[in-house]
Amino acid sequence: MGLSVGIYGGGGYVGVELVRLLGGHPEVGSLAVASRGHAGRRIREVYPQVAAGGEYLDPAEVDASGLDVAFVAYGHGESAEAVRGLLEAGVRLVVDLSADFRLPDARVYREWYGEHPAPELLGEAHYGLPEVFGAPGGRLVANPGCYPTAAILALAPVIRRMGGGVRSVTINALSGVSGAGAKPSPRTHFVSVNESVSPYGVTGGEPRHRHTPEIEIMLQRLGEAPPVTFVPHLLPISRGELETIVVEAGEIPGPEEVLGWYREDYAGWCFVEAREEVPHISHVANTNRARLSAAVDRRAGKLLLFAAVDNLLKGAAGEAVQNMNLALGYPEDLGLEHLR
Amino acid sequence: MGLSVGIYGGGGYVGVELVRLLGGHPEVGSLAVASRGHAGRRIREVYPQVAAGGEYLDPAEVDASGLDVAFVAYGHGESAEAVRGLLEAGVRLVVDLSADFRLPDARVYREWYGEHPAPELLGEAHYGLPEVFGAPGGRLVANPGCYPTAAILALAPVIRRMGGGVRSVTINALSGVSGAGAKPSPRTHFVSVNESVSPYGVTGGEPRHRHTPEIEIMLQRLGEAPPVTFVPHLLPISRGELETIVVEAGEIPGPEEVLGWYREDYAGWCFVEAREEVPHISHVANTNRARLSAAVDRRAGKLLLFAAVDNLLKGAAGEAVQNMNLALGYPEDLGLEHLR
Amino acid sequence: MGLSVGIYGGGGYVGVELVRLLGGHPEVGSLAVASRGHAGRRIREVYPQVAAGGEYLDPAEVDASGLDVAFVAYGHGESAEAVRGLLEAGVRLVVDLSADFRLPDARVYREWYGEHPAPELLGEAHYGLPEVFGAPGGRLVANPGCYPTAAILALAPVIRRMGGGVRSVTINALSGVSGAGAKPSPRTHFVSVNESVSPYGVTGGEPRHRHTPEIEIMLQRLGEAPPVTFVPHLLPISRGELETIVVEAGEIPGPEEVLGWYREDYAGWCFVEAREEVPHISHVANTNRARLSAAVDRRAGKLLLFAAVDNLLKGAAGEAVQNMNLALGYPEDLGLEHLR
Amino acid sequence: MGLSVGIYGGGGYVGVELVRLLGGHPEVGSLAVASRGHAGRRIREVYPQVAAGGEYLDPAEVDASGLDVAFVAYGHGESAEAVRGLLEAGVRLVVDLSADFRLPDARVYREWYGEHPAPELLGEAHYGLPEVFGAPGGRLVANPGCYPTAAILALAPVIRRMGGGVRSVTINALSGVSGAGAKPSPRTHFVSVNESVSPYGVTGGEPRHRHTPEIEIMLQRLGEAPPVTFVPHLLPISRGELETIVVEAGEIPGPEEVLGWYREDYAGWCFVEAREEVPHISHVANTNRARLSAAVDRRAGKLLLFAAVDNLLKGAAGEAVQNMNLALGYPEDLGLEHLR
Repeated sequence: MGLSVGIYGGGGYVGVELVRLLGGHPEVGSLAVASRGHAGRRIREVYPQVAAGGEYLDPAEVDASGLDVAFVAYGHGESAEAVRGLLEAGVRLVVDLSADFRLPDARVYREWYGEHPAPELLGEAHYGLPEVFGAPGGRLVANPGCYPTAAILALAPVIRRMGGGVRSVTINALSGVSGAGAKPSPRTHFVSVNESVSPYGVTGGEPRHRHTPEIEIMLQRLGEAPPVTFVPHLLPISRGELETIVVEAGEIPGPEEVLGWYREDYAGWCFVEAREEVPHISHVANTNRARLSAAVDRRAGKLLLFAAVDNLLKGAAGEAVQNMNLALGYPEDLGLEHLR
Repeated sequence: MGLSVGIYGGGGYVGVELVRLLGGHPEVGSLAVASRGHAGRRIREVYPQVAAGGEYLDPAEVDASGLDVAFVAYGHGESAEAVRGLLEAGVRLVVDLSADFRLPDARVYREWYGEHPAPELLGEAHYGLPEVFGAPGGRLVANPGCYPTAAILALAPVIRRMGGGVRSVTINALSGVSGAGAKPSPRTHFVSVNESVSPYGVTGGEPRHRHTPEIEIMLQRLGEAPPVTFVPHLLPISRGELETIVVEAGEIPGPEEVLGWYREDYAGWCFVEAREEVPHISHVANTNRARLSAAVDRRAGKLLLFAAVDNLLKGAAGEAVQNMNLALGYPEDLGLEHLR
Repeated sequence: MGLSVGIYGGGGYVGVELVRLLGGHPEVGSLAVASRGHAGRRIREVYPQVAAGGEYLDPAEVDASGLDVAFVAYGHGESAEAVRGLLEAGVRLVVDLSADFRLPDARVYREWYGEHPAPELLGEAHYGLPEVFGAPGGRLVANPGCYPTAAILALAPVIRRMGGGVRSVTINALSGVSGAGAKPSPRTHFVSVNESVSPYGVTGGEPRHRHTPEIEIMLQRLGEAPPVTFVPHLLPISRGELETIVVEAGEIPGPEEVLGWYREDYAGWCFVEAREEVPHISHVANTNRARLSAAVDRRAGKLLLFAAVDNLLKGAAGEAVQNMNLALGYPEDLGLEHLR
Repeated sequence: MGLSVGIYGGGGYVGVELVRLLGGHPEVGSLAVASRGHAGRRIREVYPQVAAGGEYLDPAEVDASGLDVAFVAYGHGESAEAVRGLLEAGVRLVVDLSADFRLPDARVYREWYGEHPAPELLGEAHYGLPEVFGAPGGRLVANPGCYPTAAILALAPVIRRMGGGVRSVTINALSGVSGAGAKPSPRTHFVSVNESVSPYGVTGGEPRHRHTPEIEIMLQRLGEAPPVTFVPHLLPISRGELETIVVEAGEIPGPEEVLGWYREDYAGWCFVEAREEVPHISHVANTNRARLSAAVDRRAGKLLLFAAVDNLLKGAAGEAVQNMNLALGYPEDLGLEHLR
C-alpha cells in the first residue's frame, strides 16, 4: 500500500522539490500536498515544471491522523505549531524543514528567532545531518539549514580531531537565489541579482546570520570549537551553495591528511564525497551530493576547506527525504538514486 | 593638437576598454591601436559593440617615436620587452597593464613569472594606485592588478594604522569572467561558468595566485603586514569583482572607525568611496569606482572589509587612464566623468 | 545658468536612467527628481549604483512653474494627468515616457488602456522617434515604447518603399527584464527568469500586447501597412532588446538593397546604424544605439529584418534626452556622446 | 545479465548525458564509453558533475562485436563511417545522434554537409521521432536534431490536417549554448554570450541552417508543406530550446482546435504534452519533455505555435534512449522516469 505522506508548505521552492522527490519515491503510496497560499490551485499551474497532477490542499483539509510521515516546510515559529499538532495527531515521523527544532535551547532560539512556540519538543528533535549525527531515531527530525549542512560536513572531521587547537573559523558562503525563497521582493528581482554578487546578513556593522548559532552549537557537540564568523553572499544563480572555510590553528595538517579524515568519517555514506580538486557549484547542482576538498596555506598557517551542496536538495528537500529513508530503515538513497 | 597615444595589445578585453576610453578622451589627438592577433581587421569587426571606426595595426607599423603616451596590455614577459622599446624610442609616458613592473624585485618576479626581461627598468616603475601611492611621477607606470587594486584600497588604511597588530589577513575574492581574458578555453566556455562558482588558483593543495605577492609587497610598504591568504573564485558574470577580507588583530576597531579612516585617506579622490552599506558588484560595474565598507565580528575578534571594483575599469583600463591623467597633470577623471 | 529640469517618476528603472543622463548633461543647470514611492529617501540609497547625491522629492514639492523641461515616467493614465498639469504650469517642454500620448486617437487608446485622461492634448503630441518622424516641434513629446522604437526603425524604410506590396509582418521580440519594470512580482523573481525564456502577451489564445497598435499606427503614417503580429518574449538578461522581423511581400528586395535604404534614410542621424552582420544585444546594451540588419529567404519569399536597442536607453531614457536635445536645438547626442 | 551498450563520442555534452542516462538504465548491464579526445582520462575528471566511476576508452579498444546497442555522438561525416563499422560488426541496434542519417537523400545531404560516407545505409535509417513516425523497427535509428524535434512535434499535426492550405511557415528558434557543443570558441566564451542574444545561421544575407532541410523533408512526409524559414538565436542559458512558429494559411483554426489535434496525435506518448499556457524553457529544462501550445492572431490570419524542449535530452540523448527503449520493446520511459 505504501506510506501515506503529507507535505505542509508545498508551495515554496523547498516544498515543490519535496513534491517532486516524494512523488517519485517507491515507498510512498499516497501524497497530500498542502499550501496555505495556493490551496485549490493545481500544482502544475503554480509550478508548470512539475509533472504532478494534483491540487494544493488547504492544510486543514489534510487528515493528519492518517499520515505516516509529514514534512513541514513553513517559516520558523509557524512550523513548530504545526509540528506539535501533527505529533499529537499521531503522525509516525515528522521532518521539519524550518529552523524551529535546530537549536536545542529555547533561550538561544529566542535570541535569534523569538519565543519558541513548542519548547517541550526541543529535546525530542534529532538534528538530521545523518553523516555526522547518525540516522534519526525518534519521531521528530530537525532538518538542517542549507549553509550548516555544508559547513558542518566540512568542519566536523576537523573539529573532532583538532578540537581545542582550532583558533579561528571563518565561513565565506555563496548561495543561489532560491535560498532566499519564492516570495518576490526588490532583493530577489532579476535585475537586482543579475550581474552582481552581494554580501548580506550584515546588520549594524556586524555579521549576524541565523545559521551562525546552528553551526556553532552543532560543532560544539563534536569537540571544542571557537566562535564562527559567517559571511553569506547572494549569487546570480538559481541553486547551489559553495563555502570557502578558513581554519586557523597552531598545527596545520596537510591537505591529503584532511581528505583522509573526510574519507574515513564519511565512508559508507553515498552522498558525501571528498576529492582533491576543488568543488564547483555545477558539480552538485540538481543532486543530493555534498562535495568537499581541502588546501593549506602553509606560510600563513591556515587550512582552507571547500564544500558545495545544492541548497534545495542536500541543503533541504533531498536531505529531508534521506532522513525519512534512514528513519524508516530504507536505503538512504531510496528514490534519490538519480541525485547521487 | 592633442596627445598622440598608442595602445599595444588592443585586442583583449582590457585593450578594447582602452580603445573606448581613449577614443573619447578630450586630450587625445590621435590614437593608434595595435594588436598582433587582429592586425588588419577593423576594430568594430572584432568588437561590434565598439563605435570606433579604425583598424588594428601591426605593432611594427606604429611609429613609437611619435607617441606621447603608450599603453601596453600584453601578457607578462612580452610586455616588459615592448616597454623597453617604447621608452628607448622616447615615448614620454608608458602605462604597462601587465604584471611586469608591479613586483619591484626581479627575484620575486622570477619565482612567480620567470626571468624578468627588463630588470633594469624595475626601479623606475611607479605602482599606479594613486589613491594609496600618489600620482605617477616618472615615465613608467605599473598599472596594478585588478584584485590588488581592491585589496590594497581596503587594506592600506588598516595596515597604516594597525600595522604590527594585524595577525592574519584572508582575502576571499570573487571575479567576473572577463578577468580570465578573451582567449577561449574550456574554463571560460559559457556552459562551464554559467550557474556555477568555482574557487581557483589552488595548486597541489595550496593557494597560489600571482596577485598574492603583489598585495603583500605593497602592503609592506605601508606598515607591518602578515602573509596574505588569497582565494579567488570565478563568478558567472561578465565583469566586476568583490573582495570580502577578514583581518584578525589583537585590538579590533569599530566599523565606523574604519569608515572614518577610509574617508580620511581617500578624501579628495573621486573614484574611491566608503559607505556604511556593503557594496554589491552592481554598484561599481561599468564604472571606475571602488566602493568600500567594513563590519566587525566582535565575538570572534575579526574585522571584515568589503571592496568592489570593475576589473576592466578601476581594476585595469580605467585606472590606467586615471594614471595618465595624473601623470600629465590633468584632473584624474578627465574623459572618465561618466564612470564616476 | 542652464536648464531647470524635473523628472517625475524618478524611482523606476527608466527614471533612474534619466537621473544619470540628465545629471551629466552639460545644459542642465538644476535637476529636481520626484518619486511618489521614494520621496524623502536619498537617490543613492535606493539605487546605490547612482553617483547622484540628492534626495527624491514628493512631486508636490517640485515647483513646476520654474521648470524649463519635465520628463514624466509614470504609468499610463497617471502620466497624462501629470502632463496636463505641467503644461498648464507653463513648462516649456514635456517629454512623456508613458504610453499616454503615443496613440493619436482616444478611441484606440480606450481599447488598449482605458479612458484617456487628457484627450484634448493628443493632437499636440509629437511622436518622438526623430530618425523617422523628425525633431519634435511643439511642447509635448510622446516618447516611443521600447519595442516600437526598434520595430519602426527597422520597418519604416521598408514600408515607405514597398508600401502596399507588403502582405504580412511578424515581429518576434526578445527583451531583458528591466523592460518589465522594477516592481517585484513572481514573474520577475530571479528564479523565474533565470535559465529560461518565455513568450508573453498572449491572452485567451491571442497575442495582445499594447505595443501592437502603436507600431501599426505609426507604420500606417508612412505607407500602406498590414496588421502586425507581435510576439514578445522575456529573456534572462537585465537590459536590451532584439527583434527579428519577418516581412512577406510579392517582390522581395535583396539584403544589400535594404541596407541601402537604411543608410539613406538614417544618414546624418548618429544613433542608428545598419550593418551587414546581424546585431547582437551586446552590441547595443548600455548605449543609445539602434543597430539594424537584413537578410532574405528567397525560397520562401521573405525578408528578415533584425533590430537591437537597449530598452532603457534608445528605447526610453536615452531617446527622451535625444528628443529634448532636438526640441531645444542642441546636437542630438549632447550629453549622450559616451552612448553612441 | 543486461544489455551490453557502447557510447562513441562520450566526451561531448550529448555524450555525457548518454553516460548519465545509460549508467542509470535498469536494462543496461555493461557500458563502454569511448572518446577519441579524452581516452585514458576518468570520466569524472573531465565532467566532475558525473558520478560515473569509469574511464574513457579509445574507440578502437571497444569490442564492437560484443555490443547489443551502440550510440554514436560524433560529428557529421565521421558518424556515418563509425555506424557502418558497428553494423558490420553485428551490433543489434545503432542510434546515431549525428546528422548523417537524418536526410534520406544523399543528394540533399551533399548540398548541406558534403559527400555522404555511407549512402547505402540511408534507406535503412528510421527517423527517430517516435511520437510522429512511430517506434523504430530496424537496426539503425537517425536521432533527430534538437530544433527539428521541437519543430516537427509542433507542426506535424498541423500539416497533417491543413496540408496544402498552409502558405508559409516561419520558425523563430531560441537555444541554450550547450547546443553549440563543448568545443571552446570565441562564440561560446562566457563574455560573448552573457547578457546578449544573437541571431545566427545567416550567411551572405540568407538564413541557411542545416536543420532547415531536415524539418522540411520530414514535414513533407506528412502532407503538403511550404518551404520553411528557420532563424535560430543563441541564448545566455546552458540548456533548453524554445520555438515560436508562425503559420499562415487561408483558413486558421482556433487555438483550442489545435490543442485538440495535439492531444489526439500524442495520446499515449508520455513525453509530449500540449497545454493552454505558453511553455517556458524552464518548464522542460533537465527533462525529456516537449511542451506545446498554440495561439491565433485572427486579425492577421496567423497561427502561432510554441514548442519547448531540452536540447540535450528530448532534443538528443533523452530521445536516443527513448528510441532504444522503443526499438527493444521496453516502455518508452524506462530509465527516464525522473525526466517525465
